[in-house]
Amino acid sequence: MKDFRKKQQRPRKSSLVYGREAVRQALQDGNSFDRIYVDQQAKDPLLGEIRRLATASQVPVNYVPRVKLDYFNVGDHEGVIAQKSRITYQNLQDVISFVTESGQVPLFLILDGITDIRNIGGIARTAWCCGIHAIIIPDKGVGALNEDAILTSAGALEKIPVCRVNSLMKAVDELHLNGITVFAAEMKGSVPVATADFSIPAAIVMGSEEKGIYPALLKICDTAISIPMQHEFESLNVSVAAGMILYETMRQRMGT
Amino acid sequence: MKDFRKKQQRPRKSSLVYGREAVRQALQDGNSFDRIYVDQQAKDPLLGEIRRLATASQVPVNYVPRVKLDYFNVGDHEGVIAQKSRITYQNLQDVISFVTESGQVPLFLILDGITDIRNIGGIARTAWCCGIHAIIIPDKGVGALNEDAILTSAGALEKIPVCRVNSLMKAVDELHLNGITVFAAEMKGSVPVATADFSIPAAIVMGSEEKGIYPALLKICDTAISIPMQHEFESLNVSVAAGMILYETMRQRMGT
Repeated sequence: MKDFRKKQQRPRKSSLVYGREAVRQALQDGNSFDRIYVDQQAKDPLLGEIRRLATASQVPVNYVPRVKLDYFNVGDHEGVIAQKSRITYQNLQDVISFVTESGQVPLFLILDGITDIRNIGGIARTAWCCGIHAIIIPDKGVGALNEDAILTSAGALEKIPVCRVNSLMKAVDELHLNGITVFAAEMKGSVPVATADFSIPAAIVMGSEEKGIYPALLKICDTAISIPMQHEFESLNVSVAAGMILYETMRQRMGT
Repeated sequence: MKDFRKKQQRPRKSSLVYGREAVRQALQDGNSFDRIYVDQQAKDPLLGEIRRLATASQVPVNYVPRVKLDYFNVGDHEGVIAQKSRITYQNLQDVISFVTESGQVPLFLILDGITDIRNIGGIARTAWCCGIHAIIIPDKGVGALNEDAILTSAGALEKIPVCRVNSLMKAVDELHLNGITVFAAEMKGSVPVATADFSIPAAIVMGSEEKGIYPALLKICDTAISIPMQHEFESLNVSVAAGMILYETMRQRMGT
């Protein structure tokens, strides 16, 4: 039973690139990957080059036992297998520049600690409907944005730019350097969301329902916003809370 | 395997009331039931009385073969079994009167064609947070609001009044008679939600994602409202859309 399920989860061969030169070339050509698996025992300057290219494009590299690579059943993988992504990840600075240069006022959504890919899919659907320019997610802790996530997003994840960064702290720094105000959505945020000013270049951080926003990240945000509740000690589902806040940004930007 | 699962789904004996006089008395005492099963072959004036009381409290009555009743395994059911509800359903007019008499401006949410009890649970959670006075659902098509629904609602379904009516058309008539304006949330609604006036006594109808609001019901609503979309041909998840609209009502009523 267990083996059967494992077999079902194994990615299709067509979604994989393997072999040192093939993976290096694919990275160089700017292909998007969810993850690259490298044999932890293997030694070759080409593997160092793959690591460098992967880091530059913010693709996570996992060093694993050779048996894990063999399990993909692709033949001679030469100690490296890369898993193609259905989503084209974008570079954060590129997106900021593009939005600014096209005369739009940037509006980004940062997801911190929201690891359930269905939640990410649901939020992406809302974000696309509300005209958010990009979603920023960390490359650690979040599962690959696979078919399930794309399905939950009603296809939005294939349309909205997604920036996968290796540090949300650095991403906020980068937003700040570009003159973008970062709002933290917090249960106890002092500014009611309706009175915050979203007409300026803005990014909104949403945390998980259980843990909220990571304290160090919260500390470098500019303003803590909250949704007023009619009953105390109650909380909203993260996807609904994101919907309300993004609705508010849209309402303000459309001038109603 | 199949039998085991069936057994799991069978309601616990403690959640059932059975026997003609016991069910009649429980109904008379105002207990809330999800559903009453009556042997379709049974004849007794007491069953007529049970039917009358059930109709008055808007509890659905299902006429079923005796074997269905035997399956509950409760011993001598005398042709009638009532399934207790964890939720106390309220009478719509009672709720309207209570809200009005306590000096509040009524705000109701009507769910049409939203049959997934988890969706109902999710929306109830949002509605409770936003200070909605009651949720109105039809007694047909919607599954019993069971543990699953209560769990998804984070307990909100045990707090917010739920009115289960046998006709949403009649419920809208009743709202109208009480001077309550009924807004229909429609993809193509002509009034952007932010420009609708929710400071007046109001009810909002949400339809299902697939079918929208039932045409005859839509026709008797006063205003069709919509959430402006930034990308055409896109739609929001019903739970998120409800969240945005309820947020807007809250924003207006709090005067921000």
